Amino acid sequence: MEQVSPPRPPSKLSTKGLVQVFTGNGKGKTTAALGTVIRALGHGLRVYIVSFMKGDYPYGEWNILAQLPGVGFARFGSRGFINPKNITPEDREQARRALASAREAVLSGSYDLVVLDEVNLAVAWKLVELDDMIKLINDKPRNVELILTGRKADAKLIQLADLVTECRNIKHPYEKGIKARQGIEY
Amino acid sequence: MEQVSPPRPPSKLSTKGLVQVFTGNGKGKTTAALGTVIRALGHGLRVYIVSFMKGDYPYGEWNILAQLPGVGFARFGSRGFINPKNITPEDREQARRALASAREAVLSGSYDLVVLDEVNLAVAWKLVELDDMIKLINDKPRNVELILTGRKADAKLIQLADLVTECRNIKHPYEKGIKARQGIEY
Repeated sequence: MEQVSPPRPPSKLSTKGLVQVFTGNGKGKTTAALGTVIRALGHGLRVYIVSFMKGDYPYGEWNILAQLPGVGFARFGSRGFINPKNITPEDREQARRALASAREAVLSGSYDLVVLDEVNLAVAWKLVELDDMIKLINDKPRNVELILTGRKADAKLIQLADLVTECRNIKHPYEKGIKARQGIEY
Repeated sequence: MEQVSPPRPPSKLSTKGLVQVFTGNGKGKTTAALGTVIRALGHGLRVYIVSFMKGDYPYGEWNILAQLPGVGFARFGSRGFINPKNITPEDREQARRALASAREAVLSGSYDLVVLDEVNLAVAWKLVELDDMIKLINDKPRNVELILTGRKADAKLIQLADLVTECRNIKHPYEKGIKARQGIEY
């Protein structure tokens, strides 16, 4: 599923675009990327978000993003969660398409910030080749910022990144049996 | 500075509202809260955001939030950053007003999610009394979700919270001398 909101005029990052990584087992990786997107849009930057492995899960943020100018997004992945012990050809094909979509956005000159949501886990599960991800980072135009989210970020991606945050789970309601709640967790 | 966007009809959280804490020395605490706000708004929840100690710093997200229905926000604090070794009466007065604003929003029945941005640090620096913050958590209506952000979250707040994430700094461009960039860090 792909959607692009109305375009806005070019507005390059005023500084060198960096590579940010949000990883770790705690809540906050995707939402931190999303918050950065909102901040960037507020300053007139143009943003593209590619979700790996999220299918058509009804995340509330899409309803808002679709209303905002300057943002494009694409979601890939089968509906439901991937079983890492049973990766299907369809899972791989969806991940391949997600990376191609990200690569096109990064090289297009149409976006200042590109978010690759859950790509770290897609690399860890070998849905995306680490070398292809490294190549994308190396091919990135100077004025494009990248954000990579997801658990289990590869050591090589951490090495290449400029900014890395580990979101550590200190306490989580799932541990008390509270399930994911619409409006908060998705 | 306070601003409230057009109201939207009541839409209570379908489940018990929890207390979330984002703390730690890494990037992502405020942006994770902001991302959660966008997700919540996308599902029709009503959100209030109180910023402690941020004055009128030109954060890009305010430009976006002001356009969205269902969100109120208030910013308190002197312009510029607070020196914890030289807390002024004005700093204390701003923090007192911020907490009063948060308390009013939490008890009002008008909001499903209330974010107290940087309140953890305000407590650590004794701009806000820990007991007043604990009282707010205990007085919170069942169907209101709270998010507390900021470094140095007090152990007692962590104990009272349902969900705690520590954003750990693994690598940060400030260490390489790269300054905060408009559109990304603010």
